[in-house]
Amino acid sequence: MSVKNAFYAQSGGVTAVINASAAGVIETARAHSDKIGTVYAGQNGIIGALTEELIDTSEESADDIAALKTTPAGAFGSCRYKLKSLEANRAEYERLIAVFKAHNIGYFFYNGGGDSADTCLKISQLAETMGYPIQAIHVPKTMDNDLPLTDCSPGFGSVAKYTAVSIREAGFDLASMAKTSTKVFILEVMGRHAGWTTAAGGLAAENDGDAPHILLFPERAFDKAKFLARVDECVKDHGYCTIVASEGTRYDNGDFLADTGKVDAFGHKQLGGVATVLAGMIGNELGLKYHYAIADYLMRSARHIASKTDLDQAYAVGKAAVEAAIDGKSGIMISIERDSDVPYTWHTGEAPLDQVANVEKEMPDNFISDDGFHITQACRDYLSGLIQGESYPPYKNGLPQYVVLKKVLAGKKTGSTFTV
Amino acid sequence: MSVKNAFYAQSGGVTAVINASAAGVIETARAHSDKIGTVYAGQNGIIGALTEELIDTSEESADDIAALKTTPAGAFGSCRYKLKSLEANRAEYERLIAVFKAHNIGYFFYNGGGDSADTCLKISQLAETMGYPIQAIHVPKTMDNDLPLTDCSPGFGSVAKYTAVSIREAGFDLASMAKTSTKVFILEVMGRHAGWTTAAGGLAAENDGDAPHILLFPERAFDKAKFLARVDECVKDHGYCTIVASEGTRYDNGDFLADTGKVDAFGHKQLGGVATVLAGMIGNELGLKYHYAIADYLMRSARHIASKTDLDQAYAVGKAAVEAAIDGKSGIMISIERDSDVPYTWHTGEAPLDQVANVEKEMPDNFISDDGFHITQACRDYLSGLIQGESYPPYKNGLPQYVVLKKVLAGKKTGSTFTV
Repeated sequence: MSVKNAFYAQSGGVTAVINASAAGVIETARAHSDKIGTVYAGQNGIIGALTEELIDTSEESADDIAALKTTPAGAFGSCRYKLKSLEANRAEYERLIAVFKAHNIGYFFYNGGGDSADTCLKISQLAETMGYPIQAIHVPKTMDNDLPLTDCSPGFGSVAKYTAVSIREAGFDLASMAKTSTKVFILEVMGRHAGWTTAAGGLAAENDGDAPHILLFPERAFDKAKFLARVDECVKDHGYCTIVASEGTRYDNGDFLADTGKVDAFGHKQLGGVATVLAGMIGNELGLKYHYAIADYLMRSARHIASKTDLDQAYAVGKAAVEAAIDGKSGIMISIERDSDVPYTWHTGEAPLDQVANVEKEMPDNFISDDGFHITQACRDYLSGLIQGESYPPYKNGLPQYVVLKKVLAGKKTGSTFTV
Repeated sequence: MSVKNAFYAQSGGVTAVINASAAGVIETARAHSDKIGTVYAGQNGIIGALTEELIDTSEESADDIAALKTTPAGAFGSCRYKLKSLEANRAEYERLIAVFKAHNIGYFFYNGGGDSADTCLKISQLAETMGYPIQAIHVPKTMDNDLPLTDCSPGFGSVAKYTAVSIREAGFDLASMAKTSTKVFILEVMGRHAGWTTAAGGLAAENDGDAPHILLFPERAFDKAKFLARVDECVKDHGYCTIVASEGTRYDNGDFLADTGKVDAFGHKQLGGVATVLAGMIGNELGLKYHYAIADYLMRSARHIASKTDLDQAYAVGKAAVEAAIDGKSGIMISIERDSDVPYTWHTGEAPLDQVANVEKEMPDNFISDDGFHITQACRDYLSGLIQGESYPPYKNGLPQYVVLKKVLAGKKTGSTFTV
């Protein structure tokens, strides 16, 4: 029997280190060329499999694949596209099998978050449901850190580091200016339903009075009067107040402070602008001068300040996915297992995909302080390890050098087309 | 005659490297203790001189002063406070002289932008106007890069680097996502009336099609139809469109796209939110999915990604200011003089303060492309040198270690108080 080829794709919102997972997959597969043939990468995620737009990664040099480790975002293109159930759209699965067969693909590595885990699970079931033998392994990735059954999600550690570094720096700025100018600074961070990214900002507050002073979590109902009272108290105590606010901050009735009224391809509400709403309250009701920043994509693409730990984990889950496939495994997600908090040590493990798909890990209750405005020591112990270490990209002419791959498409073999 | 002491203060919006200028002043003064006695730093800028809150920098260790080179923002506190004319508020000048006399201050180093240069000029004239002998030297600083008679303003190079790095990273992110999700990304940058910070974003576009695709300068009237047509064209050509927009982007009639209706202590309009306005146009009129980030204070406090060149210049102007004072000079600003573009080489020089105060250097017309949406090669040649080199702060537990000084106040000697 011939050596089977592999399919790898990136899915959902990208991160500063998802390409390190790609490097982990491709370099490990290359090191086992007796077991795994060519790695084909989907152009724009699973869509590339449906449209038979397969990037032949064997055309990329070893140097360029290695450079993925220092390049943010998705080098092969990502997508927000969720496979429907077999019953709802059998044609999609038949098409996937046609493409996989035509290219002799026996391994499927899907690099994404909770929605992608669901896609990966469905692929892993193709042997049973459609009689096509394929091993599907999920390579975890999400800046939201909301995947279950893993210590953390690769991509999150770098977002955490970006947030903690940024609010520390803004805190120093505000401390300088507060005497005659800005008294309140708000940093709005991404992270839809779980407050992990907000919590990470809290790491910057190592000593009493350090920024950030207030964190607003989606897990705690926003109480305007209580919030404004705390801001006022903080300005009186320290001369200024710095805030990290989740884009998902919401009122007791569940309404988001900032609801744009738009939804994404998965039906999630597209949020943004909570900082503007909070700033308006502070200006109007406390009469304090404010500034605010909205980090948005900057936080998840900030490869220049990536966490070395996060980078190592992202590479490790890609590598472990290929090794697990060689071991004959399927229907699993590679997980991160924590050995100790300080120093933070970890190893990769495995989690069954049917327990991962469509489950969101929330912040434990005991990670948020009683008043709802900061993190606890337990949370600090958990988060601290994830931001350890720096891993700077190479620079030329003052700018980080990020690789753009050749992305040579493999010739089409199915003789048919498919429209998504 | 006894050795005279010095007064140093930080003024206006702070930067990632203004503390390097402080280190340059203090370390150089310490190296010439036969010529200059104690350096007293104003607590919160010139206000510290008026209230006689003088930080005795001789209480700070050599290590802590050296650590200022890797610490963003104003370690002694800054202020937005402009001295009125001698005719309008003679009491302020009499108070300054009382404080200076009481502390034997003969040197005045003021670290700020255009408004601060005006304050420094007034102090330099005290010998003539009030009969108090003092040498006043301006140490340039502004992220806006709008000081005249200098190649650039220390503080700007780091903002330029932050902007170029950030939009490059966001561009990679957007390229990954554009197939099924976000098509347009807008980065809003600070910089009130001059487009220098916006222009710096343009450095990231080294090759055809690179982010950023569109720059919006305050120097060019915003034309909605032309802008939307360009966004649409860009998305058709490249699949996505990235934009750097100055907070000072305005219509032909001079109205800012985003006018909060607030003014700061100098009477400047406080701006913010141009990204929101642009995003609304793009969503409503082109129907494209967008994301936007607002950099705000993050860009000027981002010591973690400071330009080494900028850092060196910030230190050099502090050092040169003290040396010029020892040489008997007054009423000058230390300037940066460019020797060559590639490689960028420079040395410090001097500019007469009366030609600096209250003059804003605008972007030359030939730095903006004919269509108004990008920078020219001339601009690139000018800007490129300013972002060269990286200078990372030390890290501990994954976070940058920034120094907080002891800030011991000198005993009060005037026997009187003054309220600002």
